[in-house]
Amino acid sequence: MAIKGNAAKRRTAPARRPTRLRDTELARTPANYAPLTPLGFIARAASVAPRHVAVVHGPIRRTWAETYRRCRQLASALRRGGVRRGDTVALMAPNIPAAYECAFGVPMAGAVLNAMNIRLDAATIAFMIDHADAKVLLTDTEFAPVIEEALKRARRKPLVIDIADPLGPTDGQRLGGVEYEDFLAGGDADEEWVQPRDEWDAIALNYTSGTTGNPKGVVYHHRGAYLNAIGNVMVWNLPARPVYLWTLPMFHCNGWCFPWTIAAMIGTNVCLRRVETKAIFGAIADHRVTHFCAAPIILNMLVNAPETMRARAGGVVEVMTAASAPPATVIEKMERMGFHVTHVYGLTEVYGPAVVCDWDPAWNAASAEERSRLKARQGVRYPVLDGLKVGDPRTLAPVPWDGTTIGEVFMRGHIVMKGYLKNPKATRAAFKGGWFHTGDLAVMHPDGYLELKDRSKDIIISGGENISTIEVENALYRHPDILEAAVVARPDPAWGETPCAFVTLKDGASLSAEDVVAFCRTQMAHFKCPRSVVFGPLPKTSTGKIQKYVLRERARGL
Amino acid sequence: MAIKGNAAKRRTAPARRPTRLRDTELARTPANYAPLTPLGFIARAASVAPRHVAVVHGPIRRTWAETYRRCRQLASALRRGGVRRGDTVALMAPNIPAAYECAFGVPMAGAVLNAMNIRLDAATIAFMIDHADAKVLLTDTEFAPVIEEALKRARRKPLVIDIADPLGPTDGQRLGGVEYEDFLAGGDADEEWVQPRDEWDAIALNYTSGTTGNPKGVVYHHRGAYLNAIGNVMVWNLPARPVYLWTLPMFHCNGWCFPWTIAAMIGTNVCLRRVETKAIFGAIADHRVTHFCAAPIILNMLVNAPETMRARAGGVVEVMTAASAPPATVIEKMERMGFHVTHVYGLTEVYGPAVVCDWDPAWNAASAEERSRLKARQGVRYPVLDGLKVGDPRTLAPVPWDGTTIGEVFMRGHIVMKGYLKNPKATRAAFKGGWFHTGDLAVMHPDGYLELKDRSKDIIISGGENISTIEVENALYRHPDILEAAVVARPDPAWGETPCAFVTLKDGASLSAEDVVAFCRTQMAHFKCPRSVVFGPLPKTSTGKIQKYVLRERARGL
Repeated sequence: MAIKGNAAKRRTAPARRPTRLRDTELARTPANYAPLTPLGFIARAASVAPRHVAVVHGPIRRTWAETYRRCRQLASALRRGGVRRGDTVALMAPNIPAAYECAFGVPMAGAVLNAMNIRLDAATIAFMIDHADAKVLLTDTEFAPVIEEALKRARRKPLVIDIADPLGPTDGQRLGGVEYEDFLAGGDADEEWVQPRDEWDAIALNYTSGTTGNPKGVVYHHRGAYLNAIGNVMVWNLPARPVYLWTLPMFHCNGWCFPWTIAAMIGTNVCLRRVETKAIFGAIADHRVTHFCAAPIILNMLVNAPETMRARAGGVVEVMTAASAPPATVIEKMERMGFHVTHVYGLTEVYGPAVVCDWDPAWNAASAEERSRLKARQGVRYPVLDGLKVGDPRTLAPVPWDGTTIGEVFMRGHIVMKGYLKNPKATRAAFKGGWFHTGDLAVMHPDGYLELKDRSKDIIISGGENISTIEVENALYRHPDILEAAVVARPDPAWGETPCAFVTLKDGASLSAEDVVAFCRTQMAHFKCPRSVVFGPLPKTSTGKIQKYVLRERARGL
Repeated sequence: MAIKGNAAKRRTAPARRPTRLRDTELARTPANYAPLTPLGFIARAASVAPRHVAVVHGPIRRTWAETYRRCRQLASALRRGGVRRGDTVALMAPNIPAAYECAFGVPMAGAVLNAMNIRLDAATIAFMIDHADAKVLLTDTEFAPVIEEALKRARRKPLVIDIADPLGPTDGQRLGGVEYEDFLAGGDADEEWVQPRDEWDAIALNYTSGTTGNPKGVVYHHRGAYLNAIGNVMVWNLPARPVYLWTLPMFHCNGWCFPWTIAAMIGTNVCLRRVETKAIFGAIADHRVTHFCAAPIILNMLVNAPETMRARAGGVVEVMTAASAPPATVIEKMERMGFHVTHVYGLTEVYGPAVVCDWDPAWNAASAEERSRLKARQGVRYPVLDGLKVGDPRTLAPVPWDGTTIGEVFMRGHIVMKGYLKNPKATRAAFKGGWFHTGDLAVMHPDGYLELKDRSKDIIISGGENISTIEVENALYRHPDILEAAVVARPDPAWGETPCAFVTLKDGASLSAEDVVAFCRTQMAHFKCPRSVVFGPLPKTSTGKIQKYVLRERARGL
């Protein structure tokens, strides 16, 4: 018994007379203040549900107790390896357990995680290593060739740790002196891990895939990561203990903060080395997946999968999609297949998604087509985003809510990045006027839901009229023979620019450029229809985004 | 078109060479920082779902647009009435729309809401008015007699606003010069409302119902209110657009932060002037209520309601219960009636609930009785609570997780109060050692779930052995003829103290004291069984808590 006799009956003496202490003198103390950080979520998960499966990877099953232990080992090993508070730890890996462990273990060492896009070239990786001053680089052996080249080019020489994933290449080249599991074994899970000194301390660094110049390093802090991790729960009605499939790359805006979200809700993370249709349907069936996130391009892959593959899908699976505006027809087809789609929108600079097409139950009565059209709009702010508006790019004055006036999307508040690393000029420009300038163009509908029209660099200006490439693409996706489509501006001496469509047809389909234009004319104003149509596969980024700058180059050369 | 020509194509110039700016120099700006406050939730609700019903009260239906407008009017009217940042506005009202509007309108005027318990006596109310230096007092006319008396006794003379609720008394006495609706009409909804300067600014003041001495004023800040409002969503798996019945008094820890939670999830608030069985079942059926919170005593009322009344309950309704440990049998009966119970635990000092019996799906396989026993434990920390432990009251060292060693419950972090108003001594004592001392006694089970054994002032020490009054009460509730039971210490010359049971029988039942003791002996160790049994109704607080200090007085006089 810890309680004995009268000690158990002690009472605080009542305050006899109020002093003149003002409430403003009630200060922060360790009892009532702690920095917000998502790291506490894994400690809680390991304590509440130590035996619940946290990570699934092929035949591997690890519980929350084991995963937390491994993260603490990683933190300890990093510190023993010389990592200090504020240092950068770079990661080159697909969605494997080591990547998930880095989302916790790296900041638990006080360090900042820079998860790099696995499709990047050696020159860009070398730039990042130097710019971020990476002290450690963890790299999956699949990427040894590009990393080897990057390390040759980089001025900094980070400690290199090879990850020999059991589901990765069997003969992958080793670049460093130590393998991940051996490195972990050198860490002590019982060592106390590093709490952030301030919730404004950096937790992650994510480079934007700039199409010109060097990429910018977007810095996330603990507070924003905590809040967006919770925001995901709120907008997705995410229940306790979800089974979450990692289709979305963890290196993409730190997996939209979902590594932390899944720990907060004590879910199960199903890893996936390769985002392929068969593997996705297989994982859904094998692990009773309840939730996953994916770019529209992945959804398009799924809806166009052969019937036999699709048959493996189980009950309703919740899907969160973003990264580019999903064509309404793709949403409609996904829902017919038993998926329920939540459409979100965000950018690297806002920790991933920050806007959601919050579903109005009144819309349930609409036709399937109308419902998909409503859902294809980006929507309203996350409850954890403080401000969202569509406004004039110069004055920031809001545009009328008329569904037609195009303006720039501005955001502000808790889940806007700390800024760009070592780039005060870009940071100042991005935050000018007290709002984050997204560079995305949108209209605001009368119901307060915004709809993206284009990136400011993508919009086509033809004869003085703005043409939304998204609108033209939506029309193209309605054609039953078109698998994928992207529209860019093509310089034109008479009109300034005209729309140029790049189209991939479905297997066995055949269409002429004239067919495509004729179809578009049944769907929209003639001036918006493509003047040129090019057939063939589309260039894409690792996150499934179509690389419009490549297409713009091609259009220029036509 | 807000976008013209090349303005739409501007790009940020790429940073050519990294400067030596450290990430630590990335400062807070209006673009990326705002104080956390739950007030933004109502602005968002009004923007996202202006026509969704926010408040139901008898025949009254008000949308989120209307409710937000009324809250802004209230804020404006208060400021015009002389209320300044940091001033206290007191409220004496049951769960009516005006009370809900105060949860937003008062802090939107920069002021601090002191929602008073409607069962309080004039002397205590007078103390609060003076101690909080209330500038305004809003009072439902039902409480005019006690408020009139309190105002006579108080030194401060607040501006008094009478609330003549359409469902309240028709001839209620008016104490002030203005009625609530007229007061609102004097406010301008278009006036900008006051944002907190700092998230640490006070939002609410809640006096604890101290049983000795003067009540203590617990100060809540915007940050804690925001985080606990979200914590409620996470632990309850609260979906979008819930229909929430206000059985829990809004003056009780500010309705456990649920006024803000329901706005965050754009739900519907169903008001309830009186918490009566028939009204609860009626509201559930009439408004398709999906969620409500209630003390165990209310649940006991519901499970003992006549069959005809219960028949009005619809599908599964989610119930969150706290305030005292719910007897396992009450949970079991509720679930058999189609309610799903989530058990939480908290105190005024932690914004309401801060601990939840997080449900392990593995427990689904257990018997109904076993499931209820598991669920009757208080559980684990909210994801938004930073720390929770059961430890030695002096050294704070954790007790072993053996399910038997009793210690005091300690909490720390985001949702621990700012402190006690004008009571530095009590604040210091409460936060001694960097943890909030709850004064509650509990054991920690081997699975890391805590179970309350008693308030430190309630535990019975008999012959040197601790006896948990909760354990004895749980045994009594298992008897089919017992409606309600409470156990307190009775002084005893030989044993120090012995358990004394106060018991209310069900209608038509008849039991002797010997019957009760004999039954208890079949349930637990003999030394824990009541030595005295008293039959009759139990004295209760407005929140349904049994007033044990009254019973202790009675036991002393036996």
